[in-house]
Amino acid sequence: MQLQQSTWQEVEAYLAGSSGIIVPIGSTEQHGPNGLIGTDAICPETVARGVGEETATLVAPTLSIGMSQHHMAFPGSMTLKPSTLLLVIVEVVESLARHGFDRIYFLNGHGGNIATLGAAINEVYASGLEAADRPLRLRQRNWWSGEKVRKLQQKLYGRADGAHATASEVALSWFAHPDSVKDVEMSPKIAPMGPIRDAEDFRRSFPDGRMGSDPSLASVEAGSDLYDAAVGDVRRDFEAFVG
Amino acid sequence: MQLQQSTWQEVEAYLAGSSGIIVPIGSTEQHGPNGLIGTDAICPETVARGVGEETATLVAPTLSIGMSQHHMAFPGSMTLKPSTLLLVIVEVVESLARHGFDRIYFLNGHGGNIATLGAAINEVYASGLEAADRPLRLRQRNWWSGEKVRKLQQKLYGRADGAHATASEVALSWFAHPDSVKDVEMSPKIAPMGPIRDAEDFRRSFPDGRMGSDPSLASVEAGSDLYDAAVGDVRRDFEAFVG
Amino acid sequence: MQLQQSTWQEVEAYLAGSSGIIVPIGSTEQHGPNGLIGTDAICPETVARGVGEETATLVAPTLSIGMSQHHMAFPGSMTLKPSTLLLVIVEVVESLARHGFDRIYFLNGHGGNIATLGAAINEVYASGLEAADRPLRLRQRNWWSGEKVRKLQQKLYGRADGAHATASEVALSWFAHPDSVKDVEMSPKIAPMGPIRDAEDFRRSFPDGRMGSDPSLASVEAGSDLYDAAVGDVRRDFEAFVG
Amino acid sequence: MQLQQSTWQEVEAYLAGSSGIIVPIGSTEQHGPNGLIGTDAICPETVARGVGEETATLVAPTLSIGMSQHHMAFPGSMTLKPSTLLLVIVEVVESLARHGFDRIYFLNGHGGNIATLGAAINEVYASGLEAADRPLRLRQRNWWSGEKVRKLQQKLYGRADGAHATASEVALSWFAHPDSVKDVEMSPKIAPMGPIRDAEDFRRSFPDGRMGSDPSLASVEAGSDLYDAAVGDVRRDFEAFVG
Amino acid sequence: MQLQQSTWQEVEAYLAGSSGIIVPIGSTEQHGPNGLIGTDAICPETVARGVGEETATLVAPTLSIGMSQHHMAFPGSMTLKPSTLLLVIVEVVESLARHGFDRIYFLNGHGGNIATLGAAINEVYASGLEAADRPLRLRQRNWWSGEKVRKLQQKLYGRADGAHATASEVALSWFAHPDSVKDVEMSPKIAPMGPIRDAEDFRRSFPDGRMGSDPSLASVEAGSDLYDAAVGDVRRDFEAFVG
Amino acid sequence: MQLQQSTWQEVEAYLAGSSGIIVPIGSTEQHGPNGLIGTDAICPETVARGVGEETATLVAPTLSIGMSQHHMAFPGSMTLKPSTLLLVIVEVVESLARHGFDRIYFLNGHGGNIATLGAAINEVYASGLEAADRPLRLRQRNWWSGEKVRKLQQKLYGRADGAHATASEVALSWFAHPDSVKDVEMSPKIAPMGPIRDAEDFRRSFPDGRMGSDPSLASVEAGSDLYDAAVGDVRRDFEAFVG
Repeated sequence: MQLQQSTWQEVEAYLAGSSGIIVPIGSTEQHGPNGLIGTDAICPETVARGVGEETATLVAPTLSIGMSQHHMAFPGSMTLKPSTLLLVIVEVVESLARHGFDRIYFLNGHGGNIATLGAAINEVYASGLEAADRPLRLRQRNWWSGEKVRKLQQKLYGRADGAHATASEVALSWFAHPDSVKDVEMSPKIAPMGPIRDAEDFRRSFPDGRMGSDPSLASVEAGSDLYDAAVGDVRRDFEAFVG
Repeated sequence: MQLQQSTWQEVEAYLAGSSGIIVPIGSTEQHGPNGLIGTDAICPETVARGVGEETATLVAPTLSIGMSQHHMAFPGSMTLKPSTLLLVIVEVVESLARHGFDRIYFLNGHGGNIATLGAAINEVYASGLEAADRPLRLRQRNWWSGEKVRKLQQKLYGRADGAHATASEVALSWFAHPDSVKDVEMSPKIAPMGPIRDAEDFRRSFPDGRMGSDPSLASVEAGSDLYDAAVGDVRRDFEAFVG
Repeated sequence: MQLQQSTWQEVEAYLAGSSGIIVPIGSTEQHGPNGLIGTDAICPETVARGVGEETATLVAPTLSIGMSQHHMAFPGSMTLKPSTLLLVIVEVVESLARHGFDRIYFLNGHGGNIATLGAAINEVYASGLEAADRPLRLRQRNWWSGEKVRKLQQKLYGRADGAHATASEVALSWFAHPDSVKDVEMSPKIAPMGPIRDAEDFRRSFPDGRMGSDPSLASVEAGSDLYDAAVGDVRRDFEAFVG
Repeated sequence: MQLQQSTWQEVEAYLAGSSGIIVPIGSTEQHGPNGLIGTDAICPETVARGVGEETATLVAPTLSIGMSQHHMAFPGSMTLKPSTLLLVIVEVVESLARHGFDRIYFLNGHGGNIATLGAAINEVYASGLEAADRPLRLRQRNWWSGEKVRKLQQKLYGRADGAHATASEVALSWFAHPDSVKDVEMSPKIAPMGPIRDAEDFRRSFPDGRMGSDPSLASVEAGSDLYDAAVGDVRRDFEAFVG
Repeated sequence: MQLQQSTWQEVEAYLAGSSGIIVPIGSTEQHGPNGLIGTDAICPETVARGVGEETATLVAPTLSIGMSQHHMAFPGSMTLKPSTLLLVIVEVVESLARHGFDRIYFLNGHGGNIATLGAAINEVYASGLEAADRPLRLRQRNWWSGEKVRKLQQKLYGRADGAHATASEVALSWFAHPDSVKDVEMSPKIAPMGPIRDAEDFRRSFPDGRMGSDPSLASVEAGSDLYDAAVGDVRRDFEAFVG
Repeated sequence: MQLQQSTWQEVEAYLAGSSGIIVPIGSTEQHGPNGLIGTDAICPETVARGVGEETATLVAPTLSIGMSQHHMAFPGSMTLKPSTLLLVIVEVVESLARHGFDRIYFLNGHGGNIATLGAAINEVYASGLEAADRPLRLRQRNWWSGEKVRKLQQKLYGRADGAHATASEVALSWFAHPDSVKDVEMSPKIAPMGPIRDAEDFRRSFPDGRMGSDPSLASVEAGSDLYDAAVGDVRRDFEAFVG
């Protein structure tokens, strides 16, 4: 169930029986030579919809622009300041809590969002906000953090999965958008690794945008398997959260 | 061309020849008994993609959550404070300007965003921001403000089109999501009109969420015609803006 | 009745019978070769006082500095950022609402304020603020938007009234400050028109500050007639608002 | 010379020879049984205009709403939060500095503004702002702090002048607005003194709004003498500042 | 009693009998050739601990970084913007008030903090905050403002005490940290005086960081006497505040 | 070398040879029945001073108040909002970078600070700030994250070390303040574990403030060993960072 394709009466009916909702949050940033700029938004959105269908859970619209300052030297990347993203997340929670959603689950697709999501969740708790007079619980979770996904990544790509523009996220985004598969050769096969700092430094250290990965190994088929694994992992985690 | 389904190298190549981009901006708010909560985001996103295809223009990810405080008494509505939405818009512009986009066109789907969009555009101009050392130009435009759309609305629905949850926006959103067509009877046929104030007052005055409209008149076919009209209107306006 | 020339006991007595107040809001910005920098503050202040006298309504001190970023390339112009002006308007409302004013009417003199005023009004509604436990209603209105003024502008100046540093606003400000009438020849007679963008661009496009107007046609006599028309228009609109 | 009654060309001409400007800043708050709510704005505005005339100095529009939280239990009082007033003052300075005003003199009429004015001046200095590439100097001064005024207050009223709604400020405001003289008996003759805290406490401790004063002693004549003394004091201080 | 060296149960027990707390606030900024960068934090912290011991009062952790923008041209100086320092102070008060501390006494060591402290205290009062449903009282006081200290300064150093990097504050900080005594010759013996403006100007006017002082006169012995005097002064003032 | 006990000339000399600095950051919050409220500030401050001595590195004053909202139901706990703490950290960096410190190392003592520290570091990088025209590098590190400490914790306490008010942090703080050792019996011996949410929930779930720990096992001797281990771990990490 997608919130944006429901009517308000349908949401009212939903709230009579459930009070959980999944909010996908991602980013709009370069993902190397064959990865889509929207990879980090597409992945959690796709997984969230899968979990939403299996568990009859509402899925909010995706927060597509995250904290991507370190990618801003690559054309097309967009970013919010951490302090602004924090406000957005807080007001998303305030909006949903007003209607009685008391289990709000952020399914995250971008490592760069984790710190700000954590700060925002603390900001909400510090405010004492409740959901229609009931305690409010928030959780953030990365789509790739569950056991099934991690095992599958290891099996599919080993260390070639890498740290940014990973083979597995490219595969999952291609599964979601098979029309957007790009056939690009990588040189070197596996990109270098190193610390992430500011945007200019990032582009100097990682000139094609990848970190430690060989995303030419990605395929729609692998993406399909990763989708199944991620939906399984997230479903279990979400059910424990709302249960 | 959608930004989120492009690679950064594709964006780099695009910027060698064009510097315009369309940013759809909408809302997540109730749209009456048969209108989708995402109507105001779906409509400009759909029209923007049509214009993007016809004119080979990049389309940024949709800003799906707008200023909808007056709808917050209806379940599922989400809102940002005007001051927060202003920051988001400013940082979207800053991100795009950094890459050299100097004609940024906000295609808007929600009347409640107009004031804040205008304030944000002024905030950017006041900051003296440039796009890679070139003057920066911003424009906001509603998808329904062109002549073709207005004539067609009048012809299709006359005064029954209304002011919120209009027959024409419901039709356009159904054209975009034909699986989401809802068959709901309206009572009264045409909803009341009146001033918009705060959320509680809105629900008292407009108990099913409609203002002045009879969206049971909507249809996918009418949506298709409205789509063509809107793409024509917006294309002309956009081309004048970037030309 | 001017708030600043009343005592608190007089305001207390006033609130026993009325709960409306007019807040003039303008700007401090260039108005061409013969227009006063304070034109946009002087006009709504003058009209507000007229309506205040006729209807025994309190008039708050004028918010004299508005959103004028696009005029900042002309000496003497002052501006607040939209985000700051928004805060000021919100706190003006909070102050007045605390005392029980529940019909707060912003009489505006500057087009550049409209978006921010709208955003601020939404920010207040979004906050759920009440006036001494009663619903709070806010309205913004331009002094020139009523029917009488628009007819008179058309009759007096036709298209030579223009869009900035208009003949009619110069006339009205001279009526308020006859000592400040300036005799300046205009060249060209009617200033050019075009889009408003940032400050440097504004001065390049409109080198003497006028847009589309010939304010050498202004006169104290015309200002007097415009005053009568504006007081009539605004009075009717205000009475409908508080009634 | 008042900024609001000048044209931009007159300001341009002024800046060729001078770069100082006076900005009156006051408040809108109760001033006891016979004092005007605008007292603290009227007084510095009146003195500033006097100094402006004598020294051919521009006077900016008065910042009429100050930091008056402790008066908010009395009807008609208005306040900005310190953090908002700080932003307003900073942006006033930024506006003026852009045009080349490098000696900006805040003539203050309200004790409650002093801390925030000081903080704002520090905020500007911390930002490194310059006035058209020249060092920027800011100063705040109360209209009553000079030697002539203090001697005259002592001579006219002694300890009955008090601390809020003082006889001397009421007198000066009446000199500026002789139509607004109010004949009110005070009981007790001299109001109590004590610490200032929050609004509710203030009204409990000082039920008619006065602190330590007997403003029934005020007169237009005394106001005239205070005006002369204040113009003399402020003129000397201002000339030392710009000289 | 230092808060940071107590357990929460000890604080709970304390609050059963007392509701006052001392919060030292200082700065981290140059203090001339022989003064410690932490002088303005060390002094109020030392005095606060003395008063805390004598009166069995809790002392909060020192706010060590203040508003020091005018010292930023000297290496090692640190500053918060006034607007940020204001937020910190407000949230310190909110934290303490939540537990029932209703007499919060800021013992200040830095003149540059006074304006912002005053603004912050007003911001708290404006918010209507209470301490566990009781009225909240705040006070700021400089450690050097009492009669005993001022007499002793005069006796010890006369006009050579100066205005920044004073002999007396250097002496007190050395009393607190005798290991940090520095033997430095001053040239000229007494530093120049003049207005404080921005950082670059400060360093030009006061090249070694002192203003009007000869801190080579400082000694641990004098610091000990100043400590006794300050503890006496502050104790009396604090007891009147909480009494 | 402690910044607060240095003169500005000593810092100037230091910067000629080094550009690294350690900034301890902690919190002021309950740490169970025998742990000090300042534990999380005392621990990184103590370790930072040890590393500072061994490596001749400057140590800035400790940021003692962190993000502790979830501890606010226990008396004595203090907290900043994440958004405020973010500003403080950013301005600390701006201050230090101005002087040429280009390797700023935050040694953290509190898990609740990690997210906000990460967001703040991103905010700085997003701003493009440099240190005297050189690239700026920031790092956050917990004092307990190194290999030596983790091994020692395991050896000393095993799973009884716990998650909050740990035996090891209590031991280290006692080593720093042996006068503050408290002899308190714990019941149950090992505190419960579970998720951290808002303040009221925290106190319900963890009534004496501990999470998973038995801090009655702490001792000054163990604290001494933990100090040696932590100084070793942090020294190696810091030297790699600045090297």
